[in-house]
Amino acid sequence: MPVLKVSAADQYLIATGDTRLLEVWEALPEGLFPPFPPVELPGGLDGLLKRGGFAQTFFVGSEVLGLKFRSPRGHTIQAGGLTVKNVQGYDLVRPFVGSFGALGDVLEATLRLRPGRASVFVQRKGELAEPPHKPRFLWQALAHTCAYHFGHPLEVERFAQTFGGEEVRGTLDYTPLFPNGMGVGPGHLIDLRFSWADGGTRPPMPEAYQRLVEAI
Amino acid sequence: MPVLKVSAADQYLIATGDTRLLEVWEALPEGLFPPFPPVELPGGLDGLLKRGGFAQTFFVGSEVLGLKFRSPRGHTIQAGGLTVKNVQGYDLVRPFVGSFGALGDVLEATLRLRPGRASVFVQRKGELAEPPHKPRFLWQALAHTCAYHFGHPLEVERFAQTFGGEEVRGTLDYTPLFPNGMGVGPGHLIDLRFSWADGGTRPPMPEAYQRLVEAI
Repeated sequence: MPVLKVSAADQYLIATGDTRLLEVWEALPEGLFPPFPPVELPGGLDGLLKRGGFAQTFFVGSEVLGLKFRSPRGHTIQAGGLTVKNVQGYDLVRPFVGSFGALGDVLEATLRLRPGRASVFVQRKGELAEPPHKPRFLWQALAHTCAYHFGHPLEVERFAQTFGGEEVRGTLDYTPLFPNGMGVGPGHLIDLRFSWADGGTRPPMPEAYQRLVEAI
Repeated sequence: MPVLKVSAADQYLIATGDTRLLEVWEALPEGLFPPFPPVELPGGLDGLLKRGGFAQTFFVGSEVLGLKFRSPRGHTIQAGGLTVKNVQGYDLVRPFVGSFGALGDVLEATLRLRPGRASVFVQRKGELAEPPHKPRFLWQALAHTCAYHFGHPLEVERFAQTFGGEEVRGTLDYTPLFPNGMGVGPGHLIDLRFSWADGGTRPPMPEAYQRLVEAI
C-alpha cells in the first residue's frame, strides 16, 4: 500500500489503490496538496475514487490524471496518464471516478498536486451550508461543519477569518464511523454531494452507464 | 441550431449540438464566458465537444455540465446535468468529450459559463510555446500564436503586457481551413493537445474504450 512516486517539480503523485489517504498526506512534498482533505476514510484511495471523492468544492475528476484499474471482467485498463493529450481524449478516467465500484478496482492512481503556501483546517458548530468564501474542502461531521483550505497566505487568512470556528489540529480518522463500509444514505458525514452512511448504498445507476459496466 | 437557455444567475448555457460557436458567443450575458475562444470551427458545438475542445489551457471536461447525445446504437442518452450530484457519479459526460465521434452525436449541451470583468484577444508572431503567464486559451494559427484571456481586469492587463503582440478585433472563422473536416494531423492550427489538419484523422482508440463504444 505504498506511494510509488512523488514529483514536486511536475506536481503529481502516483500511489497504489490500497494506499490510505493519510499515507498520501504523509508523502507530500512541502507546499503541495492532494484533491482530498487530511482525513482517513474507508477503502483508501480506491474507495475514495470509487465514491467520487470527498468534501471537494471543485471538479475532482480533473485532478485524477491517470488510473490503472481492473475491470469487472478482469481486464487491466490503463486510462489517462501524465500528458495533456492523454487526459482529453477517449476518457476512461472520469467515468471511473464516482463509479461506486461498478467499473472495478483501482490498482494505481496518478493524482495532481496543487500548490499552496498556506493551509488551514477549521471547524465550527452547525450544519453544512456554503460559505460566501469557498474553501477547497467543506463537509459536516456530526454537529460540526469542517473546512480545509490552502493557497495564497492572504487568501487562506481571509477564509479563516470569515469562516470563524476553531482550528483542528492534525488529521482525523473517520473510518470508525463506517464499520460496514461507506455508502450513500442518512449518516453523520455530509458533503455537498451526498450524506454518507455506515453500510450505505450506491446511488441508482443510469441505464446507459450499466451498458458500459457490462462491456468493460 | 439555437441557444436554448442562458442563465446569468446560475452561470450556464444550454444549446443544441448544431449551434455554431459564434452563436454561443453572441448569446452570452455580459461578463460571462464559455469554455472556448471566439473563433468558429467545423461542426459547431457537436464538433468541438467530439474533438475535446480547442485551445483551452484547463480541463475542459469539467466545463461541460450535461450532455444529451445519440449513441451509435441509436440510444438517446442524458448524461450529467445542472446539479453537482449528477456531475460526479456514473459519469458519461467526460468520456464523450474527446470521443472523436465514437460515442455518437451531441443533441444538447449544458456548458458552464465563467465570469470575467475584462477580456483580451491578442496575437504575436511565432510558434506556440507556453507563456509564463497562462491565458485561458492559447493556440497557433499559421505563423501566429494567439491567446484569449478573461478574468479580473488587473490580471488580464498583466497577461496582455507580458504576452505582447497586437490586439485581434472581433472574432475569427477558421472553418475555411477545413473544407474536408477538422481532425488530427500536420496542419495550420495547433493547440497544446494536437495539431489540427484539414481532413485529419482521429487518434488511435484504446481497446477498453472500443468496448465502451460497442456497448453504448
